[in-house]
Amino acid sequence: MGQPSQFPPWRELHWSPTEKKAARTAFDAALRRELAAIRSHVESMLNDSDDIAQVWVVRDYLNEVTREFDRKYDYRYSVLIAVFARLVAEGWLSLDELADLDRSKMDFIREQSAAWGSRDA
Amino acid sequence: MGQPSQFPPWRELHWSPTEKKAARTAFDAALRRELAAIRSHVESMLNDSDDIAQVWVVRDYLNEVTREFDRKYDYRYSVLIAVFARLVAEGWLSLDELADLDRSKMDFIREQSAAWGSRDA
Repeated sequence: MGQPSQFPPWRELHWSPTEKKAARTAFDAALRRELAAIRSHVESMLNDSDDIAQVWVVRDYLNEVTREFDRKYDYRYSVLIAVFARLVAEGWLSLDELADLDRSKMDFIREQSAAWGSRDA
Repeated sequence: MGQPSQFPPWRELHWSPTEKKAARTAFDAALRRELAAIRSHVESMLNDSDDIAQVWVVRDYLNEVTREFDRKYDYRYSVLIAVFARLVAEGWLSLDELADLDRSKMDFIREQSAAWGSRDA
């Protein structure tokens, strides 16, 4: 028997076809934005240093973000509320892009997103 | 008891201070050249593709060359003849840069280098 906190109320939500489509679009948009930022950061790392050993700094950075990236972009409906909350908190996604989700989902995302924000502070 | 092939005759060679200095200079020059080529390849990979996911291709490439690079650039006198032979065979080092080594070392390197060359063919 799991503890209550491991099974938050949003784990069992129903996702309509419209919501699934909106969720996928928002998820992919956030992923593309963050990936573009990673690429841009790698290019800056190379532009800002002539050191040939800078490639090892790039390698370490990419290995580090890979772990984080793979963990973050998890498209399972059972965790998607938490994923969206984090993406909103980190600025990769705006709440407006999730407007097709129903009110209860939006409330959960807003709530969780605020929690993410305060975790960073 | 190891097999004879694991203990080639050049494993127990004596390295004079002059030879050690020349070896270190040649080793570092080869390492810098190969590292510069890796950096240049990474820059080309990014310049040749606008795909944001190209960073993962770069990551995989760097992880792959890291393994090879660390194994190759092994500055222990017991393996240095084989290391130089490989670097000469691969074009990262010229025999001229090893001219301060004694004749027996040069012969071993030339011999082993030819073996590396035929291994690639």
